[in-house]
Amino acid sequence: MSELKNVKHLQCINCGKTYPMEPGRYTCDDCGPKLGILDFVYDYEYIKTKVSKEKFAANKDNSMWRYEAFMPVTEGGPRPKLRVGWSPLYKADVLGDAIDLDTLYVKDDGINPTASLKDRASAVAVARAMEEGAEVICCSSTGNAASSLAGNAASVGIKSVIFVPGRAPIGKVSQLKIFGAEVMSVQGSYEETFKLSAEAIDRYGWYNRNAAINPVMVEGKKTVSLEICEQMDWEVPDWIVFSVGDGCTIAGAWKGYKDLHEAGLIDRLPKVAGIQAEGCAPLAHAWERGDGEEWNPEVENTVADSIAVGVPRNAVKALRAINESGGVWETVSDEKILDTMRLMGKTSGVFGEPAGCAGMAGLQVLVEKGVIKKEEIVVCAVTGNGLKDVNNAIKAAGDPMKVEPTIEGLNEALKKIGYE
Amino acid sequence: MSELKNVKHLQCINCGKTYPMEPGRYTCDDCGPKLGILDFVYDYEYIKTKVSKEKFAANKDNSMWRYEAFMPVTEGGPRPKLRVGWSPLYKADVLGDAIDLDTLYVKDDGINPTASLKDRASAVAVARAMEEGAEVICCSSTGNAASSLAGNAASVGIKSVIFVPGRAPIGKVSQLKIFGAEVMSVQGSYEETFKLSAEAIDRYGWYNRNAAINPVMVEGKKTVSLEICEQMDWEVPDWIVFSVGDGCTIAGAWKGYKDLHEAGLIDRLPKVAGIQAEGCAPLAHAWERGDGEEWNPEVENTVADSIAVGVPRNAVKALRAINESGGVWETVSDEKILDTMRLMGKTSGVFGEPAGCAGMAGLQVLVEKGVIKKEEIVVCAVTGNGLKDVNNAIKAAGDPMKVEPTIEGLNEALKKIGYE
Repeated sequence: MSELKNVKHLQCINCGKTYPMEPGRYTCDDCGPKLGILDFVYDYEYIKTKVSKEKFAANKDNSMWRYEAFMPVTEGGPRPKLRVGWSPLYKADVLGDAIDLDTLYVKDDGINPTASLKDRASAVAVARAMEEGAEVICCSSTGNAASSLAGNAASVGIKSVIFVPGRAPIGKVSQLKIFGAEVMSVQGSYEETFKLSAEAIDRYGWYNRNAAINPVMVEGKKTVSLEICEQMDWEVPDWIVFSVGDGCTIAGAWKGYKDLHEAGLIDRLPKVAGIQAEGCAPLAHAWERGDGEEWNPEVENTVADSIAVGVPRNAVKALRAINESGGVWETVSDEKILDTMRLMGKTSGVFGEPAGCAGMAGLQVLVEKGVIKKEEIVVCAVTGNGLKDVNNAIKAAGDPMKVEPTIEGLNEALKKIGYE
Repeated sequence: MSELKNVKHLQCINCGKTYPMEPGRYTCDDCGPKLGILDFVYDYEYIKTKVSKEKFAANKDNSMWRYEAFMPVTEGGPRPKLRVGWSPLYKADVLGDAIDLDTLYVKDDGINPTASLKDRASAVAVARAMEEGAEVICCSSTGNAASSLAGNAASVGIKSVIFVPGRAPIGKVSQLKIFGAEVMSVQGSYEETFKLSAEAIDRYGWYNRNAAINPVMVEGKKTVSLEICEQMDWEVPDWIVFSVGDGCTIAGAWKGYKDLHEAGLIDRLPKVAGIQAEGCAPLAHAWERGDGEEWNPEVENTVADSIAVGVPRNAVKALRAINESGGVWETVSDEKILDTMRLMGKTSGVFGEPAGCAGMAGLQVLVEKGVIKKEEIVVCAVTGNGLKDVNNAIKAAGDPMKVEPTIEGLNEALKKIGYE
């Protein structure tokens, strides 16, 4: 029920009803936009005819589009021009030693074109918009979703209209403006901002890039797992660890591995650990309480702004990812996040934003608790670049050593830090 | 005269004296560290046995190390772990139209691990330090050179000691600290800071990553041209355009093409355009005056801080690059740089720091003057990521449109910007 040979249909994750893939179809009619999140269902028999380890090995496209067979896009169809994905996977031995793991990989998604994993989602949104002939893409966000949309849309001359609440920091708004987005500064709350964007999308028929609402976003994000797996030569780690806000990324990360499994490229699945900030952990707390898919909204009190989501829009997909995989949730303090930012920089040369380091912070807690064992193979994702949030880097970094401009002054300073 | 089969020797660019490549050899004994900059001389007959277009096509290393045959490092030797280089080359049609060029490519080096082209230089410095068994690498800088050194060194557990003047902005210092660098905040001027770093390098035998002084830096930077050429399927553009501060980058960019020519991979050379900021253009002004290699120090008055170099340390190599290639120098105003930041973001989705956009700003001037013609094939490099300098992005961006949180308010706002 789709023009795409690899896609069967969309299915409501709440009631199971299926829909054909078609322009303007974002959520389930019966369950509404809050509960009725859709999921792409693929024809894996068809996909199997398109993919193999050998074909991937011969594929010279070093971007997420090497996995187009697993995405809701036309083969060889139009694409945004920015090179998204195929980010480095580092074997982080020094960092692994420091946190007592034998085999640790770090996936650095902060080097994407607009410096976060969200580029993967926005790239698919822009590709879909191009296929559907949409001239404007819209979202409501002040963060990585917005900048990735603005950048990817600009690369192919598609307009983006981005709704931000009046209180949005000028630095983040500036990036959007640099990419030529029409930024609507709504003189009201975030809820009013979101609502106005939804109304505008309805009225003007713009393409909708609001997270979770549009199911293609998860399909873009899952490419992070497809890459990790291929970069590990199709070895499946014991654990994959991601920070969680809205829930789209972790849902995508899990789906990526499930896709590879269904397509016969791997024969087992990893466990998934979802990490939230202590000050805003509606999903981790629901899991701790044993509440299944029932979660409560929370306040948003953490330095990790990119995962400070009190009302996650893809909660159910995220909760199911952890449950299906036999994984766990964990929470981390802001202090631990900032500590980890330093530890990771110092031992691996990767500089993550606070939300980008939260996964690694939680991984340490899980190792300390014995949930993740020293000999297990672990991949942890860094979801955003530290340059996105220099103020928190300043908090984490500490002061430099002051020295007088003489060699004696220098000698003295060096002695203090253990140099002879 | 080198343990490396591809390197013949080092040669002083001032007096022509040659030196073997050996630890601690940075500049010419006779000409001193200011004039006696050294240059690597290669054995291209040997290199020819190692490289071919077919071998490159089959090479799956998507980093600068695919060009190790052209660098002063041991084949398959130790390397820093960050994935530096193989940055995207975008065919920028919309931007090309906007500035009246038929064929424009943008090389986005802002997506390197620490977000600038300097990663290429630091990566080679760290590789050399590893080969030579150095335990500490040192430089004096507050900018991209320092952060790239700190990040690349951290990736392999090598210590970096970085000297910054007391007035260095805390944001930039923080990045260095995050990467675990020992940051020495010298309570004095930049000259005192540099002098103290030189004394310390001498006394402690640290590996020297000060720009220009150490000739390996240019050898790393030249990989940007090797990549551009391979990414264009070995077609040579009519022009390559780079912003210029110290002069190392443009010297490297030119040397990259010369290397390919010597190795028989291309049969012609591009012209090189060097762009400086009006407020600090010692090299462009020397060329305008027809002064050959005589240039005068200038004040440093520009928003493009990464090229605000009043006393360029690699002036002669840079001036020769332009002259040898039959190229030109051009200067641009800060206003034009900020305008270009917006234009480039809006039309290509690439967000550069001011120095990173200066090349594109100068390219426009050269097209307007008729020096570069519409039908010529042009490659322009973006040397650093806009996230490095959000304050100037704010200056460039302008304010967002304010709207009331009602659909009527929105309609009114949209009408103002041409939406129906």
